Amino acid sequence: MGSLDAIFSARSVAVVGASASPDKTGHIILRNIIDGGYAGAIYPVNPKADTILGLKCHASVSAIPGPLDLVVAVVPAKAVPGVIDEAGAKGARGAVVISGGFGEIGNTDLEAELKAAAARHGVRVIGPNCQGFNYTPNRLCASWPLVKAGGPIAVISQSGTVGAAMETWAENEQIGVSGFVALGNKSDVSEMDLVEFFAGDPTTRVIALYVEGIRDGRAFMALMRAVAGRKPVVVLKPGRTEKGKKAVASHTHSIAGSDEVFQGVCRQLKLARASDVTELYDFSKALGYLRRPAGRKMLVVTSSGGCGILATDTAEQCGIDVAPLEERAKEELKKVLPPTCVVGNPLDLTGDANAERYKVAVQAAARTSGADFFLLVFGDPIPGACEAVQELRASISQEVVACYIGGGEVETAEVLKMHRSGIPVFPTPERAVRAVGALLASHTPERS
Amino acid sequence: MGSLDAIFSARSVAVVGASASPDKTGHIILRNIIDGGYAGAIYPVNPKADTILGLKCHASVSAIPGPLDLVVAVVPAKAVPGVIDEAGAKGARGAVVISGGFGEIGNTDLEAELKAAAARHGVRVIGPNCQGFNYTPNRLCASWPLVKAGGPIAVISQSGTVGAAMETWAENEQIGVSGFVALGNKSDVSEMDLVEFFAGDPTTRVIALYVEGIRDGRAFMALMRAVAGRKPVVVLKPGRTEKGKKAVASHTHSIAGSDEVFQGVCRQLKLARASDVTELYDFSKALGYLRRPAGRKMLVVTSSGGCGILATDTAEQCGIDVAPLEERAKEELKKVLPPTCVVGNPLDLTGDANAERYKVAVQAAARTSGADFFLLVFGDPIPGACEAVQELRASISQEVVACYIGGGEVETAEVLKMHRSGIPVFPTPERAVRAVGALLASHTPERS
Repeated sequence: MGSLDAIFSARSVAVVGASASPDKTGHIILRNIIDGGYAGAIYPVNPKADTILGLKCHASVSAIPGPLDLVVAVVPAKAVPGVIDEAGAKGARGAVVISGGFGEIGNTDLEAELKAAAARHGVRVIGPNCQGFNYTPNRLCASWPLVKAGGPIAVISQSGTVGAAMETWAENEQIGVSGFVALGNKSDVSEMDLVEFFAGDPTTRVIALYVEGIRDGRAFMALMRAVAGRKPVVVLKPGRTEKGKKAVASHTHSIAGSDEVFQGVCRQLKLARASDVTELYDFSKALGYLRRPAGRKMLVVTSSGGCGILATDTAEQCGIDVAPLEERAKEELKKVLPPTCVVGNPLDLTGDANAERYKVAVQAAARTSGADFFLLVFGDPIPGACEAVQELRASISQEVVACYIGGGEVETAEVLKMHRSGIPVFPTPERAVRAVGALLASHTPERS
Repeated sequence: MGSLDAIFSARSVAVVGASASPDKTGHIILRNIIDGGYAGAIYPVNPKADTILGLKCHASVSAIPGPLDLVVAVVPAKAVPGVIDEAGAKGARGAVVISGGFGEIGNTDLEAELKAAAARHGVRVIGPNCQGFNYTPNRLCASWPLVKAGGPIAVISQSGTVGAAMETWAENEQIGVSGFVALGNKSDVSEMDLVEFFAGDPTTRVIALYVEGIRDGRAFMALMRAVAGRKPVVVLKPGRTEKGKKAVASHTHSIAGSDEVFQGVCRQLKLARASDVTELYDFSKALGYLRRPAGRKMLVVTSSGGCGILATDTAEQCGIDVAPLEERAKEELKKVLPPTCVVGNPLDLTGDANAERYKVAVQAAARTSGADFFLLVFGDPIPGACEAVQELRASISQEVVACYIGGGEVETAEVLKMHRSGIPVFPTPERAVRAVGALLASHTPERS
């Protein structure tokens, strides 16, 4: 089969089953392609309409005037093989089948027909029975909801909802995604093909994967070994419990397999394993933006004593070392900090700390403490936090991880500023520490 | 000592150490009291200014013309006992000492002086060394950041940052708080006094407590037993690990004590114990808004197969029973649902589900399934979700718990609508299930 370029770099796209009714999927996808700012040719196909959303409608795929790269099918399942055939005959080499009604409800013959039609023309197929895909470098959102913000995270998901959640969180936080692909029934394109694609994609810096079952364990391991050096991978794989496994079987007919075995594979291949959707997102932020510290020694620098304790408890649980400060570092810090600060690890700068105090403290500690990385907890409205972290990242060799909490409107503004400048910020000390735990367990390149 | 009414129902408040510089705490607190809409008399006290923020400034507490209920001190520690004396002489019976510089840095004599001054006049004191308090029924935010949204959650916190985070999350989600009190050094008012106050407060439906150490275990248990029948309580208590305990000692000189013992106390007294700040918030939402289901049988109703699996895994881990559907319920559901739905537990309504389908499904299942409660996962942009849940809550006897994820702008609007109408919504299936686990373990009144 051919490459996935006809899908991700499509210069023209047909939406077959485009609809004028705003609540129909065939309308929403067309609208999202238009509103997403796609620069290629867009062809709505619907024999019963003249125009939809201001675009001329075509009676069939064959009736489209220009050349065609990609077809998006939102028609009843029965009609899909014919659509693929027509699109293939017109030269299209990519298809996204949103429609359900195939193998997932027992219609395996129809799915085989779809595959045969695609194979005849060398058309690569995403789906069927899926939520489409979004690829921000081509501004092509053939999915929902509409997400436009470009960023370092690629999301590959057997659940459309998990993918959509990741995308919208990333957009709301002004982090963005390079892409999102829903796997659906995986009649052709699998998570394997997509991991390979995004491993070579220049915009992508981390791959987030939600899968319910892995068909070929050996091939998966071989691929992950090959990808390892290029891009870090975060995996969320449910079916950890007996009832969870049954639910997996009923959802996608996948076999969840032994969770212990999969856990071992993750450890061996240094895949960061998330235990829930929140961690899938947090770990992706960490691995997409941070470098792996050279060791596990963390110095917590905080304006909030309480958050320092919460970070310490979580670190102990994650095997991260909140090592006591050495005398030399203590002396150095006492020289540069007001006497009200509690000089230790956590290093409590107290509630009146400003951004400058963080800078001074971390610079002194970077020279003297032996910490492999710093967790900065901004626990009050502290303007200038973003600039302080930026300057620290430029001036010291250790990695800097940021948490912002309890800072009201100042926090909101500073967090968005940090995200826009490539600094991930976590909303609680516990989430920050767990994300660092994932970073340390991953293939992310080391900071040096 | 007298009641806390002089603090929470104050009809007049003096801010001693009010400042004209926008970045000073003495400015921020005055501004928040004004902007919060406080209806009582506000007296800035600062001998060097004529007016601050448009209000006439007074040279001293004694120089304030009218009667005085409450004094907020933001002056150097040394000056605080004198301020309390003056305020007490003027008839004030409440004080909030923001200033640090007392016992927490070894100045125990000064803290004793402060206590003696307060005792002389029967003044109740919050702090010193704290982030103040906020009480929305009196629209009095003598703290930061400014939070105005009233709601069912009372936050009592030894960490100002944890309290501020809870308040701002509740405000952003349009849930709101009844109040927030920072404990500081607890020279007088303790978490015990505050639990008692909020247990009797008509606006409060759940008490969220962050404490690092409990001074008198027996008294704590007696109080919690007394409160049990009246209000559910959620507790976050760090110091679970050895290094965490050390950090506790260094932050507030508290003794964290044995975590196993505390865990046992929580179980015995049915306090919902949170393991991190996120859970403190989620559990408070659940206990403040939901009724305790009569049993542990949960039916998951979802538009997202993946989220149904994630909910099932988490339920198994929390001891919640995702029981298989009985034949009678299956038959009933098949009658009312399209054939593409996967009738089981999870009940997968599939990605094209609208709000009506949720209503029909849950109503059928409420009659036939034997489930004690329903978890509704809205995993797509589903308009009308709020109305559907409202109608269900009015028409069936079982509790309904909502999760909304991956729904883009529709989600944002529906979640806020639900919160405004008293329905808590959780952002991931895992967080929703864990919150129900806390609900089941708590003293929240049962749904009948």
